[in-house]
Amino acid sequence: MTRTANGKLLAVLDAFSRDRPALTLSQIARAVGVPVSTAHRLVAELTAWGGLERGADGRYRIGLRVWELGALAPRGLGLREAALPFLQDLYEVTHENVQLAVRDEDEVVFVERLAAPDSVTVLTQVGGRFPMPPTGVGLVLLAHAPVEVQERVLAAPMARYTPYTITDPHHLRRVLADVRRTGVVISDRQVTTDAVSVAAPVVLGAEVVAAVSVVARGSSAASVRWLTPAVRAAALAISRTLGTSAGDPA
Amino acid sequence: MTRTANGKLLAVLDAFSRDRPALTLSQIARAVGVPVSTAHRLVAELTAWGGLERGADGRYRIGLRVWELGALAPRGLGLREAALPFLQDLYEVTHENVQLAVRDEDEVVFVERLAAPDSVTVLTQVGGRFPMPPTGVGLVLLAHAPVEVQERVLAAPMARYTPYTITDPHHLRRVLADVRRTGVVISDRQVTTDAVSVAAPVVLGAEVVAAVSVVARGSSAASVRWLTPAVRAAALAISRTLGTSAGDPA
Repeated sequence: MTRTANGKLLAVLDAFSRDRPALTLSQIARAVGVPVSTAHRLVAELTAWGGLERGADGRYRIGLRVWELGALAPRGLGLREAALPFLQDLYEVTHENVQLAVRDEDEVVFVERLAAPDSVTVLTQVGGRFPMPPTGVGLVLLAHAPVEVQERVLAAPMARYTPYTITDPHHLRRVLADVRRTGVVISDRQVTTDAVSVAAPVVLGAEVVAAVSVVARGSSAASVRWLTPAVRAAALAISRTLGTSAGDPA
Repeated sequence: MTRTANGKLLAVLDAFSRDRPALTLSQIARAVGVPVSTAHRLVAELTAWGGLERGADGRYRIGLRVWELGALAPRGLGLREAALPFLQDLYEVTHENVQLAVRDEDEVVFVERLAAPDSVTVLTQVGGRFPMPPTGVGLVLLAHAPVEVQERVLAAPMARYTPYTITDPHHLRRVLADVRRTGVVISDRQVTTDAVSVAAPVVLGAEVVAAVSVVARGSSAASVRWLTPAVRAAALAISRTLGTSAGDPA
């Protein structure tokens, strides 16, 4: 693969992930596909900029500068800052796991989560990704995604996590239509057999820009239906706040 | 100024800030100091990568990819995720503004804040910067910074925000010694005449990696002294959690 100098620089950053947050120079060189000497120059450039930091163990990690810039992303921290007070309120009134997510391509990216120590364990992480069909937030985001995204997801094989996971495109299509009609979805034990989520859309202008959910222990959709008004109200409150500051949606 | 291709790419990202989160192509070209055609190529490269996003208004903003990578920064979201439950507890028991900050060079960078609607208004923003001497978290971080950082800050002119702001290097030196001795600091009306903060260090290994504070309405150090045990306990709890996961401090 031929790559520009810039492409190689970005590839160094791409070498880091949730699973590999700390890398040695030779691991970076391997991941980017360049000699160690080239990797050394790229890493030095990124470190001087603040994009990488070298730890006491000699390994490199993503630097504070990237986090600072990321704080400017309207769909990242900007959204999350507007939403956090309402997510905290939602946590206060439910004492269940609260999540905020956006869509990126065909996946959900979790922008915030408040974990409830006494509730069911949820494995999502801030900045982590997940397929759309098996999650409440994903169903909301997919229901309002461009048609080509929906068709791509409907055409792709869907992973089965539990006997309740939606894997049939016809079934998924019906659920998406329901979400659009009702403005809320209950995702019933799709990822683990003890957790049910209730999710609702966050709207800016005419666009669904995010989804809020509460994930609670449950063994049926009915068992968490009481959460629906609180989740919808929180989603509406966040939408209202985003709308007010939308003169500059950063 | 001569710059490498990579330097220009990073300069495009640096053009964005809290004050300028959305830029047109020509604004980016001006900020980087390159022709619009060059800026166009750099922006296209960054947009394809996900580092920039083009809004409906034609302006560019920092993209979700940067936020995602930033989530891997141990001193950004990593720290913040370890700390958040304890910051929430601290908010629960005080109902005052709670802040988490790290030092970057000679400034404080706020990594998290929970704003208390009924308390005094605090203007800090997540990802925002502030000088060290006038803030509680800054005093803690400065007290434990390398000597060369301390000497640089002590030698530089210090901005005065209120009649109570520390601007005398001898006074600051005494305060820093007190912080090191007592493990806590009360910053008395240094930024506004109605707010006092209590701050304590977060420690990983032998290193102070962050500081926690509560900012409350107050008119003297004595008026917020009751907050000290809660702030210190939260800082210790975060330190403990970081220490447990320090096998891989990401």
